[in-house]
Amino acid sequence: MELGIGLFGLGTVGTGVVKILQQNAPQITERTGANLVVRHAVVHNLNKKRTGFVQDFPITDQPADILNNPDIQIVVEVMGGVSGAYDIIKQAITAKKHVVTANKDLIASHGQELANLANENGVDLYYEAAVAGGIPILRTLATSFTADEITRVAGIINGTSNFILTQMASNGLTYENALALAQEKGFAEADPTNDVAGFDAAYKLIILSNFAFGVQPVLGDVSISGITNLTDLDIEDAQSFGYGIKLLGVAQRVGDSNNAISIEVAPHLVPFDHPLATVHNENNAVLVNGESVGEVMLYGPGAGEMPTANSVLSDLTNVATNYTPGKPFNTFNQNLDLAKPSQRVARRFVVVDVADTPGAMYSVTGMFTSAKISFTDLKQTPAKNGYARLVALTYPASDAQLNVIKTTIRNADGINLVSEYKIFS
Amino acid sequence: MELGIGLFGLGTVGTGVVKILQQNAPQITERTGANLVVRHAVVHNLNKKRTGFVQDFPITDQPADILNNPDIQIVVEVMGGVSGAYDIIKQAITAKKHVVTANKDLIASHGQELANLANENGVDLYYEAAVAGGIPILRTLATSFTADEITRVAGIINGTSNFILTQMASNGLTYENALALAQEKGFAEADPTNDVAGFDAAYKLIILSNFAFGVQPVLGDVSISGITNLTDLDIEDAQSFGYGIKLLGVAQRVGDSNNAISIEVAPHLVPFDHPLATVHNENNAVLVNGESVGEVMLYGPGAGEMPTANSVLSDLTNVATNYTPGKPFNTFNQNLDLAKPSQRVARRFVVVDVADTPGAMYSVTGMFTSAKISFTDLKQTPAKNGYARLVALTYPASDAQLNVIKTTIRNADGINLVSEYKIFS
Repeated sequence: MELGIGLFGLGTVGTGVVKILQQNAPQITERTGANLVVRHAVVHNLNKKRTGFVQDFPITDQPADILNNPDIQIVVEVMGGVSGAYDIIKQAITAKKHVVTANKDLIASHGQELANLANENGVDLYYEAAVAGGIPILRTLATSFTADEITRVAGIINGTSNFILTQMASNGLTYENALALAQEKGFAEADPTNDVAGFDAAYKLIILSNFAFGVQPVLGDVSISGITNLTDLDIEDAQSFGYGIKLLGVAQRVGDSNNAISIEVAPHLVPFDHPLATVHNENNAVLVNGESVGEVMLYGPGAGEMPTANSVLSDLTNVATNYTPGKPFNTFNQNLDLAKPSQRVARRFVVVDVADTPGAMYSVTGMFTSAKISFTDLKQTPAKNGYARLVALTYPASDAQLNVIKTTIRNADGINLVSEYKIFS
Repeated sequence: MELGIGLFGLGTVGTGVVKILQQNAPQITERTGANLVVRHAVVHNLNKKRTGFVQDFPITDQPADILNNPDIQIVVEVMGGVSGAYDIIKQAITAKKHVVTANKDLIASHGQELANLANENGVDLYYEAAVAGGIPILRTLATSFTADEITRVAGIINGTSNFILTQMASNGLTYENALALAQEKGFAEADPTNDVAGFDAAYKLIILSNFAFGVQPVLGDVSISGITNLTDLDIEDAQSFGYGIKLLGVAQRVGDSNNAISIEVAPHLVPFDHPLATVHNENNAVLVNGESVGEVMLYGPGAGEMPTANSVLSDLTNVATNYTPGKPFNTFNQNLDLAKPSQRVARRFVVVDVADTPGAMYSVTGMFTSAKISFTDLKQTPAKNGYARLVALTYPASDAQLNVIKTTIRNADGINLVSEYKIFS
């Protein structure tokens, strides 16, 4: 059997896909029973010099060259962007072509609609590369944890912010210097907002939530905070209590009957001896907790030409061996309520600046007592500019309780909230 | 569609399988399109009290009750042992029943023969639970790294020995006390040989090698050494250089053209900041290096009722959704030579006791120089009973070179080889 591939996009990932297809062709054919052959690529810029592979297929800038080609059975979309890719994938599916994409923004926002369309047209729509680069987390959730009740999926799923946090923690860089280094190394874009503000992680967490819990959240369902306000002082203080700080995407069942779901991207304190704490620099990891399986973690490269291309290839080989075309990548659907603030409960790391005046600390502890938040650990460092820095670790408290204390602090004189992060356990 | 299941064995894992099937029945049916129903269990001891599930199926001690039952389409073998299980699985396959087993010894020794038989009979033979308990490593190798060239699979795949090593390293226990604690907690058997001498890990490594490299090694192809000779002093010395000691199963391509394979179970030094170093107690982890994917690690529980049962369930749900019955779990076959000692190259941790006499150290360093082994680090501790302990870390050296130095030392007076382990990187 020969399967023709049409590539939309021939940048980093697209080039990696062609390289693997060419270099490992005999092995792929032996293991799948199919010859996977690139028949055409469509790109934006025809003048760009392309190297690293044998160009034995035409390259044009006309989508119709792929969409109308009857010898192309699989469309690989690795050009990025949402609206253009959406149109092309829709047309490809309607033309009864299987689609493999690495486009997380598109899948997070239109995944269900496109999956339904693919199902109607009897073609596959796979997107392993959309989440956590080379880590095969989506296929694992779909095929290995099918029978389990997943209670939490938590991950370091943005390599840029993890690189920045690692450099701050290990090499003592400030946020600004760590960001500059990430940009220099090509891990962060000139405008890093999408990564450092948590949006990239939120898109990936939406897709993970769909596979782990069968829910279909939209961006507005995700509580998002990034790492832009994190200081080296926060990291030092966390370290002094035995914790690192990581930007985590956390989707978990909460509530008394476990039928609400909390979906959150935020910096978290992670104990040094937790497997997630050892995930450094641009690497990613996804932790899965299931009623049966317990705790499992998948660790690996979160981006990069060849790891991401390998995830595209895993989709291609699964298209080639799938005898039930149209069966959705994820077949799990269930209804869960969105968690209320009172249902998001965790221990906290809270930092406040307190005016260095008699009775100030008494008044602060009184505020926490009113909000029914108790401390497990406290550290006060000497006053600077008339303010003392108070770092507190708390017993479990809900977002609702934290909202109370935040309001109280905002309305009080002589006390400012500096930082507040959940402690992951 | 309804699929009837016949269970051979209703011990820890078998009970876990029934629990999951009963508790998560609606979800399993929704996601697979099939009702998976236990129709019969065959056990050795009919008098044993069994709890934790609703017994809505007959339990007998006659294999024929399952093998001749036309309403049973899938046989789950979780009774253990090789010869009895071999006969039953062969009969089940010949009776055109799909087989799911957790039996690593059986698969490591008869896997290929049984896979061929299953293929001829058009039924599935899956065994995810045979390697690394709850970690879905086999299916990941089969379906996500199909197109990649794997260069190494390395893992902590024996929970018992990892528990012992963790207790020695973290709590300062001697080997004997750590083993006693493992036995007390049920992690080690009364006769722990199979685990601590490395045989259990070797069986799992044979199966991993089959999936990662397409080879079919036998036990004699695996170089095996266990943890029985490891001392707390070795662990302390390794720690002083920044390493932990882990029992690793390592299968890797070696040689100039990368077409030989080295398959080895042995204690290795692992740098503290390596992901494998953070795998503690009874947990397992498998590290995969691929030309494309780079380095990926799967971490999780290596044993236990529910994690292992979840792996059996992943096989069952894959049987239920597989429309190409008989397609082998692993479709990868290739020929690689077994590595020669000269092709097994690694940095080393070498400990020798040297007589505390003038010129002794000069003579020792002369021996290493003759074997062309150079040191990166040296540590000599004061003599006790007339012998000094010399700990050396070396530059990369082959097993052939180490064999030379071992012979030299054996034939020399005033020097004894205490320990020799590879350093993993």
